[in-house]
Amino acid sequence: MTERNDRFLRACRREPVDVTPIWLMRQAGRYMAEYRALRARYSILEMIKTPELAAEVTLQPIHAFDLDAAIIFADILTLLEAMGLPLDFVSGEGPVLSRPVRRDDDVRALAVPEPDEKLAFTLEAIRRVRRELDGRLPLIGFSGAPFTLACYAIEGGSSREFLHTRRFMYEQSRAWHALMEKLADGITRYLCAQAEAGAQALQLFDSWVGLLGPADYREYVLPHTQNIFEGLRDLDAPLIHFGTGTAGLLPLLREAGGSVIGVDWRIDLDAAWRLVGEEVAVQGNLDPMLLACGAPEQICAQADRILAQAAGRPGHVFNLGHGILKITPPEHVAALIDHVHKKRLRGATTE
Amino acid sequence: MTERNDRFLRACRREPVDVTPIWLMRQAGRYMAEYRALRARYSILEMIKTPELAAEVTLQPIHAFDLDAAIIFADILTLLEAMGLPLDFVSGEGPVLSRPVRRDDDVRALAVPEPDEKLAFTLEAIRRVRRELDGRLPLIGFSGAPFTLACYAIEGGSSREFLHTRRFMYEQSRAWHALMEKLADGITRYLCAQAEAGAQALQLFDSWVGLLGPADYREYVLPHTQNIFEGLRDLDAPLIHFGTGTAGLLPLLREAGGSVIGVDWRIDLDAAWRLVGEEVAVQGNLDPMLLACGAPEQICAQADRILAQAAGRPGHVFNLGHGILKITPPEHVAALIDHVHKKRLRGATTE
Repeated sequence: MTERNDRFLRACRREPVDVTPIWLMRQAGRYMAEYRALRARYSILEMIKTPELAAEVTLQPIHAFDLDAAIIFADILTLLEAMGLPLDFVSGEGPVLSRPVRRDDDVRALAVPEPDEKLAFTLEAIRRVRRELDGRLPLIGFSGAPFTLACYAIEGGSSREFLHTRRFMYEQSRAWHALMEKLADGITRYLCAQAEAGAQALQLFDSWVGLLGPADYREYVLPHTQNIFEGLRDLDAPLIHFGTGTAGLLPLLREAGGSVIGVDWRIDLDAAWRLVGEEVAVQGNLDPMLLACGAPEQICAQADRILAQAAGRPGHVFNLGHGILKITPPEHVAALIDHVHKKRLRGATTE
Repeated sequence: MTERNDRFLRACRREPVDVTPIWLMRQAGRYMAEYRALRARYSILEMIKTPELAAEVTLQPIHAFDLDAAIIFADILTLLEAMGLPLDFVSGEGPVLSRPVRRDDDVRALAVPEPDEKLAFTLEAIRRVRRELDGRLPLIGFSGAPFTLACYAIEGGSSREFLHTRRFMYEQSRAWHALMEKLADGITRYLCAQAEAGAQALQLFDSWVGLLGPADYREYVLPHTQNIFEGLRDLDAPLIHFGTGTAGLLPLLREAGGSVIGVDWRIDLDAAWRLVGEEVAVQGNLDPMLLACGAPEQICAQADRILAQAAGRPGHVFNLGHGILKITPPEHVAALIDHVHKKRLRGATTE
């Protein structure tokens, strides 16, 4: 029984910590042999929808590495499935939503689900992981953000150019806003239910929002994301607002909400922090490709730069700038975590 | 015979102009029926390598629209071909370089070509277009930047994750820098030769550089790009430095060089201009997807926001944030140009 580690939650609240906490987006994933072994026996959806399996996968990286937080193993697309869009993961193709949203009728047909009914598997997995962790480490819950979920719903899967989404947004603005409202409503309920089930922090993933310029973000996205953060205001959990390619959008992401702003690797962490203001915490921002392909000394040198940029103020959660890549050697993960934890914060500040 | 229009060159030099000049990246391209008609008869490489055809394609958008500059029809990859990498355009796949650079031997095997020998077709096309334009409009020459060309050379074509490139950069840093030096040398000679043939402004396209974080940009790219701008310093032509996804890199792009900095659509133009400083001109930054999918009133509203952000200081060249999409209706192009030209600058300033 190790002792309670709450430095992740403390950093989210901008309270002093002994060393910078670290966790990695997609830390339960294919780069781990333990994950691949389980994945050989079950489909992704089986793993997500079987609470025992989801809990086991969630804990795999916790057992393997000295991480400061767990994140529930789930997928942002199960919410779309619960709203009425059939979902499958096709080998080599990724997620496929076979009935994409293309007209206002499609938006009207979407249901705002009761999480206890339609997403009970993830809530149950959260309860299990909390019992297993027994207070030693905090557990993060999450959801996709309305823009990113709208992209998947409209494209019917992943995309390079997101042409259908952009057409829908510009040509059917009324239906777009109706879709975003339903998504925001569903997301708010889902995140509240996760907090109630035991998630101690909540991350909103707006992975594709960096496609948009600031004016479009303000018009088509911000009000909806803002409604979600408004709806979560009374929760005790820190709220992490994450996107990629957002160097030009950061002030607007901050305006939309969140007590921790996620920053990808394509901007210096200190420049990003200036853009969002020091009243919020920041999370980031090592390049996942460097963790995958760099030598340990290159990885540690970049980690040092990030820590130096964050030094001198509370509120930095170390993370990658986006999810860990499946080609990442687990030794690199161990070396990074060890390196970040070796930097006592007093030392980092005076470097 | 229309009169001489030099507002593009004047804006590049931050001199006063009557209205904001506008041209569009990839303005000679598949969105135009005239282009598609020619393309039905010739391959892309035939069009590029036959000076009559390249000149004709260059002038197609000039005849169709009230643009303020022409840009020579060419491709950034012909330089790689001239350096010794066989190039083909495969239908549906895009460019393919069948002998990608993967080891230091491959770098050593690359030649720095004499543009007059290996790229004479583009130089001849430039001379032809200059004769045709007869001083009415300026002509822009261009090259890919070393990072973007290195990506193509190493991947052997386009890519989503650029994994080979990143591995090469981190794992074979010495070979990487040797490759970048050769590319920078070839690019400098190529751009000088274009200026000598008559190009009145030169644009360096670093389209993929937004993949990198600032520290990697500084270490692996900046010195090489800087060498190019150093090598072009004595030319009279304005030098445009363009990249996409660069909101977090703009101060470094500025440091690398260029008298005009290209800005993509994912940052407000005024924020970008603050980042690069007012001693340089800026070019941008309408979202190409908005021009393709938006209604004319949505396009014009966004153009107004951009013009308002640029108003009050000399040195704005209106453009898209990246190349025009092939699905763009030509009427949208005409409406945008007309709208930008209607805004007399005195009016725009006081709006």
